[in-house]
Amino acid sequence: MAANNRNTPILTPETLLNHWQGHRRLTRRMIEAFPEDKLFSFSVGSMRPFSELAMEFLKMAEPITRGVATGEWVSKDLTTPGTKVELLALWDQATTAINTIWPTIPPHRFREVDKAFGQWEGEGIATILYAIDNEIHHRGQGYVYLRALGIEPPAFYDRS
Amino acid sequence: MAANNRNTPILTPETLLNHWQGHRRLTRRMIEAFPEDKLFSFSVGSMRPFSELAMEFLKMAEPITRGVATGEWVSKDLTTPGTKVELLALWDQATTAINTIWPTIPPHRFREVDKAFGQWEGEGIATILYAIDNEIHHRGQGYVYLRALGIEPPAFYDRS
Repeated sequence: MAANNRNTPILTPETLLNHWQGHRRLTRRMIEAFPEDKLFSFSVGSMRPFSELAMEFLKMAEPITRGVATGEWVSKDLTTPGTKVELLALWDQATTAINTIWPTIPPHRFREVDKAFGQWEGEGIATILYAIDNEIHHRGQGYVYLRALGIEPPAFYDRS
Repeated sequence: MAANNRNTPILTPETLLNHWQGHRRLTRRMIEAFPEDKLFSFSVGSMRPFSELAMEFLKMAEPITRGVATGEWVSKDLTTPGTKVELLALWDQATTAINTIWPTIPPHRFREVDKAFGQWEGEGIATILYAIDNEIHHRGQGYVYLRALGIEPPAFYDRS
């Protein structure tokens, strides 16, 4: 037990992966909750439809995991699919990729400062937390879209 | 350096406090960004106005910090104030309280399972992350409110 609060380990890679994949399961349920046409077209206040927000999550998740693991920052060239089924398939592919890459992240990389995609400087943990927070942030916007459509969104607290 | 990924420390109490207070600074800017009347009245899809979302954050933040620190889970009896200035004052009081209580959290409490407010069972870290995630989630909804009002929200990435 560390005597000093400043250096106490409070989160492990495994806990963080489970935390993120729990959020990603909720986001997947959000994609499912949208009617097919509304997923690709509906928004409020001239914002992006939820499909485009989900694509942003996909463009960050696997590439960031790989970048923290390897130090190589390669953007993922993804085109928004035309159907919910295809979007969910991309989602599931990313889930598998993240689970596969995650255990290969060298422990020190979480605390090492790197420049993600040559642009955003920070510790690996900060870049990963940014991806998670960004997903929560935009997914929250999707909740408003669903409410505006009269659809009950999935429970925020359920990460199963 | 741990040889095993599973137990590698990747986040310290100090880093997590800075992360949370960075998010709380952004939420404070959101409160400021709302026109006085809209803060207490406007929403989309019959959801709560942003003032009520901010009150929810306040009801969680300091009591959860104290609960993780002490094991005593005491709800904060807060009434929604009538003005933005008063709401911001409550926000700033909570900021100070969190900063004061945080260093007193015994290190082991982050990983210890407790039942928050006698209801929600989980490690201290999970309860704190829930409070942060809940704030990000509902704040994202506030972004839609501002966009629907034609107001540019503060930048998500700016936590200064």
